[in-house]
Amino acid sequence: MSEVNPLPAPIASSGLVLSRARRDPTYQVSATDETGARADTTIAGEHPLTIYVDRREIVTLMTLGQAPEALAIGYLRNQRLVGSLADIAAVQVDWEVNAVAVSTHAGIADLDRRMAHRTVTTGCGQGTVFGDLMEEIDSVHLRNDVQLRQTGLVALLGLIRDHDSVYKSAGAVHGCALFDNLGDQCRMVSFVEDVGRHNAVDAIAGQMWLNDWDGSDKIFYTTGRLTSEMVIKAAQMRIPFLISRSGLTQMGHQMAERVGMTLIGRAINRHFLLFTGAHRFVPAVNGATER
Amino acid sequence: MSEVNPLPAPIASSGLVLSRARRDPTYQVSATDETGARADTTIAGEHPLTIYVDRREIVTLMTLGQAPEALAIGYLRNQRLVGSLADIAAVQVDWEVNAVAVSTHAGIADLDRRMAHRTVTTGCGQGTVFGDLMEEIDSVHLRNDVQLRQTGLVALLGLIRDHDSVYKSAGAVHGCALFDNLGDQCRMVSFVEDVGRHNAVDAIAGQMWLNDWDGSDKIFYTTGRLTSEMVIKAAQMRIPFLISRSGLTQMGHQMAERVGMTLIGRAINRHFLLFTGAHRFVPAVNGATER
Repeated sequence: MSEVNPLPAPIASSGLVLSRARRDPTYQVSATDETGARADTTIAGEHPLTIYVDRREIVTLMTLGQAPEALAIGYLRNQRLVGSLADIAAVQVDWEVNAVAVSTHAGIADLDRRMAHRTVTTGCGQGTVFGDLMEEIDSVHLRNDVQLRQTGLVALLGLIRDHDSVYKSAGAVHGCALFDNLGDQCRMVSFVEDVGRHNAVDAIAGQMWLNDWDGSDKIFYTTGRLTSEMVIKAAQMRIPFLISRSGLTQMGHQMAERVGMTLIGRAINRHFLLFTGAHRFVPAVNGATER
Repeated sequence: MSEVNPLPAPIASSGLVLSRARRDPTYQVSATDETGARADTTIAGEHPLTIYVDRREIVTLMTLGQAPEALAIGYLRNQRLVGSLADIAAVQVDWEVNAVAVSTHAGIADLDRRMAHRTVTTGCGQGTVFGDLMEEIDSVHLRNDVQLRQTGLVALLGLIRDHDSVYKSAGAVHGCALFDNLGDQCRMVSFVEDVGRHNAVDAIAGQMWLNDWDGSDKIFYTTGRLTSEMVIKAAQMRIPFLISRSGLTQMGHQMAERVGMTLIGRAINRHFLLFTGAHRFVPAVNGATER
């Protein structure tokens, strides 16, 4: 289970109403192993969650349900359906009906056109609002006055290794985490797991709005592959450092080069591969001997 | 690289026109490892592919591009936009413009309504046409007169282990495979890798149409997690056996129980966990000693 509470306290000053409706992350099922022995097993939850905005059905996501309010907000943010947290009056999850009701102060202008456009650009798990994202990527400028030290990266990977997670007990989920960069150390400010890596990154995008976090000096970690979409979403959050345990794709690489992001893959314990944005990376003086 | 050609020869008798426009699966990029040494690395391709049906834009998928014609056909099949292969006159991929043009004989009736419905049910990588799929799942009847022997399963896992793959050289992709069940042996009839597991399963669905394969006695293998959507798609192909190297989710488990599918996870070499549909599974007589 995540130790980092994925939701901030309701923001009273803004009047935003938030439920805090987390699901149990894991369940027990019975299985039989190759010897014929019974092997009770922990598996990850998966729940449909239909997002309604001002009573209009938008989408059904399948989710682990660890940060459903932030997921709904981040989904609407990343789909460019809501432009600012201030537009949202309430986000209320009701697992009795697997729904999250988002109320806006003034409605969403032009929703039909936006939804229609989404239809032709939303990929089946790959190209979410790809057309929109590509149009915006060239307007993104990531900060170049921030650095990631190798010592800080290794510290970050140690925090990930030691963090309690649904993945460790049940597998079948991806995790994303957001870190403050403290030089030789890092501080985990958020950790979200979900059955799809898209949900996990969307939930963190929602948390960033809810907490008014500035991404421009943060570090984003994901267990998932570094595809074009992951790079583009990090860029849109203005995050200059993107780190993954997994590999990357050609377009992920191209997008990171295009936007000047520091992209690090295959990052486990002390090992990693630095692919792009080396100008922000500070190697350890004795890096070669620390292996 | 896949050794199994993912596309059949053009079906002259039906007059279906098919391109055969595969992309290179991997590319080389330069990286720096933790010692500061240069580490040239193989990474997986990722290409946008926009599907047009009768010149109307449907969706942009991000794909490895190993079976783009079958992917387009399988996507339209699994989204329930095309009801039969006989409706399709031509599928022509042009990587110069990252597009696949699908021509139908008589158009798609009611495309606007179908697309609109898809908008509200297509998840961001999780819940593709979830509403539609759930409606259909209860009408599926999987064959109960077929069996999977433990010896055959272990033979299948050996074929997977020995199969040359993009994953082995570049990571960052998921693989799906379809097998004939020969009792103590299995025969791989298809193997498709893609940057998203949804694409890989859709491409196999397309190949099944193209080759007129009956799924009712076949075995489906995936490297990806067994979520509700994966179980539902296998059920719609009438495939009674679904096997994964990875774990499963609660809804994947529930859906498999609901439709009576034989679901096997954590399947690597001789090891596996049998979760549901045990009535079709024949343990090895000396299963306990073979460990």
